[in-house]
Amino acid sequence: MLIDVKFQPGGRYDGILGVQAALEVLRTLHENNIKTYCPIALVNWTNEEGARFPGAMMASGVWSTKSSTPLEACWAIQDKEGTKMKQALEEIGYLGETKCDYRDNGLECHFELHIEQGPILEREGKSVGVVTSVQGMKWYAIRVEGVEGHSGTTPMEGRADALVTASRLIATVRDTALSTQFGVATVGVISSDTASQATIPAGVDFIIDVRCSTDDLVEKLATAIFNAFNRVIREESNKTRYDIKRTWGLPESVFHPRCIDAVRVSALAAVGENQIIDMKSKAGHDSAWTSRVCPTSMIFVPSKEGISHNPNEYTSPEHCALGAQILLDAVLHYDEKVKTGEFAALE
Amino acid sequence: MLIDVKFQPGGRYDGILGVQAALEVLRTLHENNIKTYCPIALVNWTNEEGARFPGAMMASGVWSTKSSTPLEACWAIQDKEGTKMKQALEEIGYLGETKCDYRDNGLECHFELHIEQGPILEREGKSVGVVTSVQGMKWYAIRVEGVEGHSGTTPMEGRADALVTASRLIATVRDTALSTQFGVATVGVISSDTASQATIPAGVDFIIDVRCSTDDLVEKLATAIFNAFNRVIREESNKTRYDIKRTWGLPESVFHPRCIDAVRVSALAAVGENQIIDMKSKAGHDSAWTSRVCPTSMIFVPSKEGISHNPNEYTSPEHCALGAQILLDAVLHYDEKVKTGEFAALE
Repeated sequence: MLIDVKFQPGGRYDGILGVQAALEVLRTLHENNIKTYCPIALVNWTNEEGARFPGAMMASGVWSTKSSTPLEACWAIQDKEGTKMKQALEEIGYLGETKCDYRDNGLECHFELHIEQGPILEREGKSVGVVTSVQGMKWYAIRVEGVEGHSGTTPMEGRADALVTASRLIATVRDTALSTQFGVATVGVISSDTASQATIPAGVDFIIDVRCSTDDLVEKLATAIFNAFNRVIREESNKTRYDIKRTWGLPESVFHPRCIDAVRVSALAAVGENQIIDMKSKAGHDSAWTSRVCPTSMIFVPSKEGISHNPNEYTSPEHCALGAQILLDAVLHYDEKVKTGEFAALE
Repeated sequence: MLIDVKFQPGGRYDGILGVQAALEVLRTLHENNIKTYCPIALVNWTNEEGARFPGAMMASGVWSTKSSTPLEACWAIQDKEGTKMKQALEEIGYLGETKCDYRDNGLECHFELHIEQGPILEREGKSVGVVTSVQGMKWYAIRVEGVEGHSGTTPMEGRADALVTASRLIATVRDTALSTQFGVATVGVISSDTASQATIPAGVDFIIDVRCSTDDLVEKLATAIFNAFNRVIREESNKTRYDIKRTWGLPESVFHPRCIDAVRVSALAAVGENQIIDMKSKAGHDSAWTSRVCPTSMIFVPSKEGISHNPNEYTSPEHCALGAQILLDAVLHYDEKVKTGEFAALE
């Protein structure tokens, strides 16, 4: 049986591809009167991206009970306008009553299809990535504090300009990541306390995103960055101070051999060995949390030029359909092993 | 006759002091049945600060016809929510029908009372600054453009991170102002194109505020900053580009001897020579524009610790009242000279 994936036109597939493909899997099973042995569900985890409510992969983190941000803490998180997440969920009718806890509402296994969001598949001329793990990542919220002043009347020598210090620190994040080669570190979001062009900012906030192939390297890179920060602060004539206000982290995630195998077998059947590689995900995904409490794996399909989180993000309809096909086959492959008791026999 | 200034409690006097004192001047004249020879008006110039609608001293600039942003251009300026200034003025009933042009609605002279916004009066132990000029200032809107990417999947080496470059440029603004000693340069406002912590920003905007005692020094400092920017861009492995999108400027303003004299005579009568100094304003004021088309001067009173544009801004009630008294006396002094034809005789 082949599945017929109906994608929306245009380019943005980050997240959407997974949901659309899962929906197509359900439709295809229904249209072909296939009844799986295990009940099957499509999960659209809330706030995977963290664009409105700071944090990411929030619902899967809560469900796994392994995240440092449990349910009540997530509900209390506010967007820029001060709306709490719980209120926002209530307003769109998405709060629900089902307990978000794997111990009450568990999964036999979790499969996720995603675009790669990086350049490797395209560069290597491959169609499918069999994802075996997700690299470790950590966010650090930095606040720099100085003293507000008028841009015209405050002499350069006496200033404590929070934006100047923040700027030196942000440049240091890149320089340290480049010189140590431990992994990647990025500052995407910055805000200055003032909205006036004629004011020396008293405070600046920014967030550092650190990612490395192992948790140990994440710690090493973060330590190197903060050591470099202390040097910058010591050498800076502009007397400000900084502190680390909040951290979010997702330790390295290792996927389950049974799920990895289900994806590999299905990919082999679809495109042959020459089109497949094993990959480590460099981006975070809900599967990183689910893998902590149930067998999990992911399927990657190519991203054009590796571009993601951008309107130019693009994956061809053929690759989207191929990913959905492998998702269906992996689910059926796994289901069959549960049904026949093969997994139980291996326990 | 003494004036009795009723100030609101608390600290913020930037702008408010001038309006309250001018109102008190009118009240005092009215209560004492004084009819001036010249008609007298209180002007509260629109958008002096530029906090909501970018630009500053906007209405006085339009009225003087010397600003590079004439009426229609000001009306078209949008706030962050996309509301045009004309619409905002209409909504609060402040659009009006009186022509904002000194050639139709001129002034005989313009006096302005303001807090110093700097530390000089307090440091020197003086009560009154007789303001003789306003230093030159210019704003440059900079946009840095790179390439958006995912923070986890984009290798450090291939990045074009707009925020890293913007950070190096902002640090360069301070370093150049300090090393050249031409004047002051500040970046207060910054914004990144992305709201996602997991995204390498494709674009960053910031505004540089340059102020020096002469227009020539403003040009020299700006040139030194942009030369340094080009060096940063050349040396940066992170390949981004920047451009200067918009400038706003207020050339050096020289006040009128007649108005300066009216302020000085009134200040001498109030506190004696020992408490007075001549000053150059380091902040911009509406008087900078009015001085181009009618005789103008200003009165400064002390700012505690030179703090301004901050909730800790403070000027004592006694200094506020003293400023208002000098404002009243300067107006009456000037009015008397017009009435007696003394100014005409000097022409």
